[in-house]
Amino acid sequence: MATVHQRNAEGATRWLGERALDIHYGDLPPGPQRIVKHCIIDWYAVTLAAIGEPGLRPLIQDAEEEGGHPRATAAGMSAKTGLYTAALLNGTTSHVLDYDDVNLAITGHPTAVIYSALLPLAESRHADGRALLSAFAAGYETACRVGRWLGDAHYEHGYHATSSVGAVAAAAACANLMGLSIDQTACALGLAATQAAGLKAQFGTMAKPLHAGLAARNGLMSACLAARGYEGGRATLEAAQGYAQVLSPMPDWVAATAQPPGHWHLQNRLFKYHAACYGTNAGIECARELRAEGVEPDQIAAITVLTHPSTRNMCHLPMPRTAAEARFSLRLNIAFALQGIDTGDIAAYTDARLNDAAIVALRDMIKTEFSEALGRMEAEVIIELRDGAAHRRRKDASVPAADIDAEQARICGKYRTLAVPVLGAHGADSLLQQLLGLPGLQDTSVLATPLATPAS
Amino acid sequence: MATVHQRNAEGATRWLGERALDIHYGDLPPGPQRIVKHCIIDWYAVTLAAIGEPGLRPLIQDAEEEGGHPRATAAGMSAKTGLYTAALLNGTTSHVLDYDDVNLAITGHPTAVIYSALLPLAESRHADGRALLSAFAAGYETACRVGRWLGDAHYEHGYHATSSVGAVAAAAACANLMGLSIDQTACALGLAATQAAGLKAQFGTMAKPLHAGLAARNGLMSACLAARGYEGGRATLEAAQGYAQVLSPMPDWVAATAQPPGHWHLQNRLFKYHAACYGTNAGIECARELRAEGVEPDQIAAITVLTHPSTRNMCHLPMPRTAAEARFSLRLNIAFALQGIDTGDIAAYTDARLNDAAIVALRDMIKTEFSEALGRMEAEVIIELRDGAAHRRRKDASVPAADIDAEQARICGKYRTLAVPVLGAHGADSLLQQLLGLPGLQDTSVLATPLATPAS
Repeated sequence: MATVHQRNAEGATRWLGERALDIHYGDLPPGPQRIVKHCIIDWYAVTLAAIGEPGLRPLIQDAEEEGGHPRATAAGMSAKTGLYTAALLNGTTSHVLDYDDVNLAITGHPTAVIYSALLPLAESRHADGRALLSAFAAGYETACRVGRWLGDAHYEHGYHATSSVGAVAAAAACANLMGLSIDQTACALGLAATQAAGLKAQFGTMAKPLHAGLAARNGLMSACLAARGYEGGRATLEAAQGYAQVLSPMPDWVAATAQPPGHWHLQNRLFKYHAACYGTNAGIECARELRAEGVEPDQIAAITVLTHPSTRNMCHLPMPRTAAEARFSLRLNIAFALQGIDTGDIAAYTDARLNDAAIVALRDMIKTEFSEALGRMEAEVIIELRDGAAHRRRKDASVPAADIDAEQARICGKYRTLAVPVLGAHGADSLLQQLLGLPGLQDTSVLATPLATPAS
Repeated sequence: MATVHQRNAEGATRWLGERALDIHYGDLPPGPQRIVKHCIIDWYAVTLAAIGEPGLRPLIQDAEEEGGHPRATAAGMSAKTGLYTAALLNGTTSHVLDYDDVNLAITGHPTAVIYSALLPLAESRHADGRALLSAFAAGYETACRVGRWLGDAHYEHGYHATSSVGAVAAAAACANLMGLSIDQTACALGLAATQAAGLKAQFGTMAKPLHAGLAARNGLMSACLAARGYEGGRATLEAAQGYAQVLSPMPDWVAATAQPPGHWHLQNRLFKYHAACYGTNAGIECARELRAEGVEPDQIAAITVLTHPSTRNMCHLPMPRTAAEARFSLRLNIAFALQGIDTGDIAAYTDARLNDAAIVALRDMIKTEFSEALGRMEAEVIIELRDGAAHRRRKDASVPAADIDAEQARICGKYRTLAVPVLGAHGADSLLQQLLGLPGLQDTSVLATPLATPAS
């Protein structure tokens, strides 16, 4: 199964470990320094909004029954619990809404796993803000390097890369925070790699977010065991019958070591601003801009949307019947955007609204066409008005934001929309200020507290 | 990747679940009824002997720091802990010595994972002996069916099937003990399948036994989550991008449903009487017999061992450097046997001995040749003496015992050798009587107590 590219991978586990240990927040360029904070603020937005999701209740009850020494705060629990349970609940909660950040180098979501593993560790050790930021960046870069190593073929084969790559990245992040030796770190990466799992057949079920929680817990545990001297292979990722060879039909170590655009994988982060499948995002953005330019729904005579053919099996439910289905309907989301509905707010997706006559009329006016000429995250919206005028807009959601101030404003807006209903305006703002001031924060354990639910 | 054989697999997850729920100890024929007990007695032998292994200490310390409500006894801990921690420690401990039973339908070790998951559950529920025996048989048959489904190709590709198949089997066993519905069981199997992992690159390290512990914990947790109503796929094992298709280069559902020789997979159990990888056993048996016939090490001019090519990725470490690696070295184990060292005794595998000059000289004299003409557990040893005489012996370790009384005597002998130093003669015998009388035992929680170490 291994290709010629794999032959160069000698020393890969140590190489990844060395680079993960070598990342310090203070050495990052200004752009990545700010992006790290954006990833973390985004994590709070999507995690806080998911606390209380009924589908999580069995997992919380199970964690309460298993118990654990009260060392860390777990999303959605009232009392503190063990580190591993906290990582499991944080990771699962943060991925429930599928509204968390993306990096195409992994074909998945880096922050849900990495930050979920790090926070309980940082809380229990009272780590300072810079230590947490350094560790997060280490995990993020490792995730993307490993993601490129396994390649798109890994995801296409059926692995949920968020989990199978994320576990290794979480171990790297925790190794950085704990200040492990390179030898311990190589062991930690191997222990995480040998637990890497997650099947795409579980997409559409609550097992999908569970994968993120399991990867966070397993990555954290791998680092803790390696720190205590539990023995494991030091070259497990590149070895024969090891991680890359077993889990990818086409591992490519050269791609893992290649310099990404912008020198840091962090530069290629993508945030979701619409609480719908990422495949709908470019279309929504086109519609929003056209509306902002004055296109009024009642003037529209015809709407055509061009997208990549992969949309068909991703987010092309033409007539969604539930709020959950609505998030996988390109047509409905474009109708929402043309009507001025805030698709950034999860509460926008109500059964009542998706059956609203004006929305449905607009939705059914939209003709979808598929074209290989567009990128997988690209869309073009063409609107003809009754007066004969035509408007068109094309957007590519795979391009990271160029204006980092604008990104910060938008992430903070998303955060307020999702966090204020949970923490209240004062609580949400106070946490946001701590997150924006993370490099100067003395004790990051305060960042865990807002995840706890009041004791019942 | 999926072959034509996969196309018939519709409904596979439910089919496996239905059959697992349908197994009751009382319905088993007399042979399998006795074999279940032999598996469990063997589990105690190899688990008790491994308690106190220094390599396990970091795992135990980690478990103590994580904590958990005291609901179950964990091998090697003094105080009770949570169910998952107990399953993790039991499974890891039981596989540390690599001295536990084998079934070639899985290319792996069924009991280490299944019984390790079941015991904490049985203890916490005070299940009776028949419930425990029924659940164990359900897990065992499921393991072998799933093992045949993924096929030898799964193991050859690099998965440690003991773990990747064992997690699903443990979930099935726990579902039987808990009396889950078929719908809950299908969900449990899917949650276990989506966590299935374990890389053969970790063979020869402490991660290998850890795989068994993780599989036990993950299988148990999958059943517990499904029982609480956590949502997951119901057809995850056969689905596109599901378990069989992703984890096996050649899944074969027809093989999974085929009647095994003897009608029950339990009939094809193999017990180890040498403390090394099962792949070395036939070679050891050949060498022992040749020595017993008068072949003296210092008369030997040349040694050739013929084995199946699968040995190469299983137990062919030519120059092992640690006691753990020594168990995966065909050459070293043959050298041990030719020197008259008792490979049934775990204490034989010391660092000093594997670096002994006479042993090393003998080991390095051995030429290994691979041939498809031999079975996977078959070996032929050919020895040329200095006087020109040649001796050869061929053995096949894949043939289950025909005489079940003789098997019981040998298993009880192995148990006494390994258990008496830990429990004392009285304690070991008292536990053995309880195990032999399992079908009449009212409360199996007494079977967990001997695993605890005295409080320090």
